[in-house]
Amino acid sequence: MNVEPIVGSRFIHIFQFSQADVEAFAKVTGDTNPLHLDAEYAATTVFKRPIIHGMLGSSVFTKVLGTEFPGYGSVYLGQTMDFLRPMFVDIEYEAVFTIQSINPDKHTATISTEILDKQTRKATTRGMATLMNREKF
Amino acid sequence: MNVEPIVGSRFIHIFQFSQADVEAFAKVTGDTNPLHLDAEYAATTVFKRPIIHGMLGSSVFTKVLGTEFPGYGSVYLGQTMDFLRPMFVDIEYEAVFTIQSINPDKHTATISTEILDKQTRKATTRGMATLMNREKF
Repeated sequence: MNVEPIVGSRFIHIFQFSQADVEAFAKVTGDTNPLHLDAEYAATTVFKRPIIHGMLGSSVFTKVLGTEFPGYGSVYLGQTMDFLRPMFVDIEYEAVFTIQSINPDKHTATISTEILDKQTRKATTRGMATLMNREKF
Repeated sequence: MNVEPIVGSRFIHIFQFSQADVEAFAKVTGDTNPLHLDAEYAATTVFKRPIIHGMLGSSVFTKVLGTEFPGYGSVYLGQTMDFLRPMFVDIEYEAVFTIQSINPDKHTATISTEILDKQTRKATTRGMATLMNREKF
């Protein structure tokens, strides 16, 4: 999908993570919170089963912004994330990116970033990215 | 280090990432932006050499909050991150966590999160975490 980088442009990316991804993320980051890794422990929590690390779910933001929309040349300046609902493995999610503003002098943009459960359409994560890209903005 | 979870409490964690960590993070997240992986490409940018993914650097927040301070039982509700300066592999960084407020009714807290270059004392990342932990807050 090739979307022009202008205010109002929207880019959508479908994705999911596996339990192996959660384990790889736990290993590289050191976040071994049992809520993400231990089904027995997670069963004792309000979530009933392991949830994906919020920051692993949100890593779809750095992936898409850095490689697809707007893509190579992007330098990440900031990201906010509200973790509204838990995310689970093997569930299809939709990440929606909408350009909110562009500053052509500074080559920066603010882009709203949202993750929805593809089936239920409920938002799991909402935030705002700030990005510099000298070629695109 | 055992720090009481009260307003004003501070927790410090020293860490660094290797290029193998950057590659593992790129693999699990899919963020293959050459700025992080390709020394020849990075040499053509203002950074001159590959920089760590901002979200990999900030993953120290989810690690420490989820496993050490306040630790197990933490549920991540939100995180903001301003990427102020690039981070590099094989450099020691210091992550500083300071409890800003606690809501005992909701068992939530806001915790400022900052990363400093351990040598130069310059901040690379600043943000705020929002967390629920029924046992600690």
